[in-house]
Formats: sequence, structure tokens, C-alpha cells
Amino acid sequence: MDLAMDAGALEAFLAVEFPQVAADFAVDAVGADGVTVRLRVADRHLRPGGTVSGPNIFALADLAIYCAILARIGPKALTVTTSAAIDFMRKPAAGVDLVAEARLLKLGRVLAVGDVLIRSAGAEAVVARASLTYSIPPER
Amino acid sequence: MDLAMDAGALEAFLAVEFPQVAADFAVDAVGADGVTVRLRVADRHLRPGGTVSGPNIFALADLAIYCAILARIGPKALTVTTSAAIDFMRKPAAGVDLVAEARLLKLGRVLAVGDVLIRSAGAEAVVARASLTYSIPPER
Amino acid sequence: MDLAMDAGALEAFLAVEFPQVAADFAVDAVGADGVTVRLRVADRHLRPGGTVSGPNIFALADLAIYCAILARIGPKALTVTTSAAIDFMRKPAAGVDLVAEARLLKLGRVLAVGDVLIRSAGAEAVVARASLTYSIPPER
Amino acid sequence: MDLAMDAGALEAFLAVEFPQVAADFAVDAVGADGVTVRLRVADRHLRPGGTVSGPNIFALADLAIYCAILARIGPKALTVTTSAAIDFMRKPAAGVDLVAEARLLKLGRVLAVGDVLIRSAGAEAVVARASLTYSIPPER
Repeated sequence: MDLAMDAGALEAFLAVEFPQVAADFAVDAVGADGVTVRLRVADRHLRPGGTVSGPNIFALADLAIYCAILARIGPKALTVTTSAAIDFMRKPAAGVDLVAEARLLKLGRVLAVGDVLIRSAGAEAVVARASLTYSIPPER
Repeated sequence: MDLAMDAGALEAFLAVEFPQVAADFAVDAVGADGVTVRLRVADRHLRPGGTVSGPNIFALADLAIYCAILARIGPKALTVTTSAAIDFMRKPAAGVDLVAEARLLKLGRVLAVGDVLIRSAGAEAVVARASLTYSIPPER
Repeated sequence: MDLAMDAGALEAFLAVEFPQVAADFAVDAVGADGVTVRLRVADRHLRPGGTVSGPNIFALADLAIYCAILARIGPKALTVTTSAAIDFMRKPAAGVDLVAEARLLKLGRVLAVGDVLIRSAGAEAVVARASLTYSIPPER
Repeated sequence: MDLAMDAGALEAFLAVEFPQVAADFAVDAVGADGVTVRLRVADRHLRPGGTVSGPNIFALADLAIYCAILARIGPKALTVTTSAAIDFMRKPAAGVDLVAEARLLKLGRVLAVGDVLIRSAGAEAVVARASLTYSIPPER
């Protein structure tokens, strides 16, 4: 399995395509088995009480699998999420980044499916899990 | 079916509990059948190309069902999302608010389930649908 | 919106394509807004305690949306389920058929999305809700 | 992490609680990380063309996570599925058992969450993935 983009290429791509949010995320690792993406948790991601909000956890899951797909097919910005299922299981630890480990389960001609586990950095317990489906543009 | 909170009470509650995002949303209607919540779409919600980002659509779905629950049980801030399934079906119209119509399908002692349709304001076609499950705090 | 198949045509199609299970189901109504499909509940569908098993409720949801799609596009047997999200909310009433009301939310060139509410016949309370996505064969 | 039931205890429990379907399934392994459950594929599970039907794949996923929970909490028959999200990714191989590997991601006081990968016996490619949520009866 060849990789089309490494961590640096993915971060450069995100900085161009998603300038409003790219700085919130870091691509920590890209490998044959999947990618690791980190949400640099800041005050603007928090709900009262100090927990990261659901939409920000969703955003991390979405971006992690997006990166896992692009790492394989290259910079196709028009790859779009078609469905997502997410379970929120535990409150994240306060003041700690969230780390998503995403893996691709299917990379078809028109559809890709992946799943992701999200943990507080350095912790074992899973904060959230998600599975997402993407539509790959036909010009591929 | 009695309502515990109306649109004004919900907006006032959101302004206190979610000060960072409450201004993005409006509670347009609260009734026996559900609630209507609107995302006031602004530049910060957009992806390149002018479409509202997935996480912002997720946030709207999440908030709409949260409001549908609170309208029935009153201001229990600790009601939390436990799972969500969302389908993204069409690109939203550019420069138009998104409107979510949420209905509660179950309001149990510890779990509530609702679903929601999201459309561009004034349009018939459904941009996204979502179903979400919430855990209701036991002190209820 | 033209319908390509009515209730009789759908039942005839199911009898040929799904001979092992077609007798379990009835297509009660087909209209512009969706279809109504009924599971003729029998002992073989039950779990101890008299409740219809989860897989049989899933089967009803799946078949109902399949019928809603075929009613529009005609008898394309190769239309296949790609994903499903289902919430089980209440125990069905004992000894009563289950009735599914399905609606299509998107009928695209390669993907269709629908959702469905399932109730015990004659009851208002929702037993389960589901949303499903189908891949439509390209030869369409 | 102690296990409350091993593979033999789970199969004996299923034979009593689910007499209509227990013979279709085998509990192949139970460990600290999860369980492996197999669907003994027979003609009655197939759709025309030889593929295992969606409801039977759902049933396998559901049962596998149910076993993963009971392996930890013991024989609580009233543990019930509250929601499921499943992605069907590939056709199963013809004439081969399906094998589900399930893991628990959360085992709370009232809710449990797990996910599962399903493959044709002996194959690497994933046929389906699912995540399921269960309600655990309060008498626990």
C-alpha cells in the first residue's frame, strides 16, 4: 500500500483548503494502518465545565478520516462526508489535547469508510468513537 | 403535553450556558410537535466554496434536539449527547441560514431520542438528517 | 413524481427476489410521500417474552426503504444497503404486526437515503426509527 | 478485568434464552479484549446470489457485542440494544462462515458501547462494521 501524502503534505493541504480551522489540528502520524490527528484544545473548543464540545469532537473525527483517505488517494478536496455515526462515551480530560486514531476499512471507487477512536492525550479510556462514510469525486 | 420552556426561555438559557456559540443560533419556534432552530450562517461557518461545514451542521442538529428535550423537561444543562447518526445529502444554498426541524421520538427517564431535518431557509430539499440520543441526568 | 411500481408490483418483485422472507411482509401502501410496509409478526420473529427481535425490526426497516426506492426507480434488484442507523425505543406490543412508514429523503444517481418509523399496528408510540443509505447500481 | 462468562457459558446461555437462533451461532473465543462470534452460514441466511442477507449480518453484530457485555457482567438477559450503526462494505464470500470480532469500548452503569468487525472466515477484508449501544437493567 503506497501512501500519496505524508503528515507534512496533509498539514500543508489543510492549511490551504481549511484556513479557518487548520491551525486547530496537527497530523501526528501517517502510516499504512491509518493516521493520528490531534485537536489542539483551546478555550474556544470548550463547553462550560471545561469539556470539549460535541461539534469539536465531531470535527476531529471527520478530519481524521478525511486525512486517512487523502493519505491514500492524494489531495482531492472534493471528497465529502456523506454520513457519520458517533458515540460520546466519556468526558475528555480538562486542558489536554484530544488524539484521534483513524483507520480506513474500505477505499472503493466512489465510497470510503473509516472509523476512529478518540482519547485524551496520554489516556487509555476512549472518549468517543465514530464511523464515517465519504463520497470520492468521480474524476479520480 | 406541557412545555417547560418556550423559545425565549430556551434562548436565554443558551446564552448563559453556551456563551461562545449561542449568538449563532435562533430558536424560531417551540411547539408540541418539536422545535425549529436556525443557524445564522456567517463566514466563520463556511468551507471554501461557500458551503456550511459538516461540524456546523452537526452543531445545529445537536442543539435543535437538545432544545426539543429542554422544552419538555426544563433547564437541565447536564443533559448530554450520547450518540448521533447524521447523513449529509445536499450542499446548502450559499449565503442562506440553515433551519432545523427537530422532533422528540422518545423521552424516557434516562434516555431521550429525537430526529431532525435540516434545510436551507426557504427551500424544500433536505440538506441533512440526523438522529441523536441524549442521557438525562438522574436528579431529574 | 412518477411511481415506477405500486404495492402489487413490489410484492410480486419481493416474492421472486426474496422467496425466503417475502411472505413475512406486506406492502400496505405506496404513495408520493413514501411507502408503508408491514411485518406479519409470527412466533419465529419473537424473542422470549414475546417481543420482536432486533434483527427482524432491522429487516422491516431495511425492506421498507428498499421498497420506497424501487417504487421510484423500478425493479433494480442490485440496489444494496450500504449503511444503517437504528434506534430501538420501546418494546413492540405482543401479538401485533409491526408497521413501517418509510420516506425517501434523497434519491441521487448513485446513493439514496431514507428514514423510517416503526410502530405496533394501531399504536401511536414509535417502537424504532432507522435511517438507511443504499447504493444504486450504475447501469441505471 | 475479570470475565464473568466464558465461551461455553455464553453458548449455554444463548441456547436457553434464544432457542430459535442459538444454533446458528458459535462463540469461538472470549478474552479480555473482546469476543469472537461466528455465524454458521446456511441456505436460510442467504439472499439470491449467495450473499448473506443484511439482517443476518446485523444479527451477528448484535449478538457478538451482547456476548462481549455478558462476558463481563454475567447472564443479564434483559440487557437490550438501544441503538446500532452498521456499514455494509463488501459482499461476503459464498459458502463461508462469517466471523465477528467485538470489543467493548465502554461498560457503564446503565449503558454499554461496543464495536465489531465482520469478515468472511479466513479473509482479511472487512465485510461489515457496526457499533452498538446497550441498556443494562438497573437491578445490576
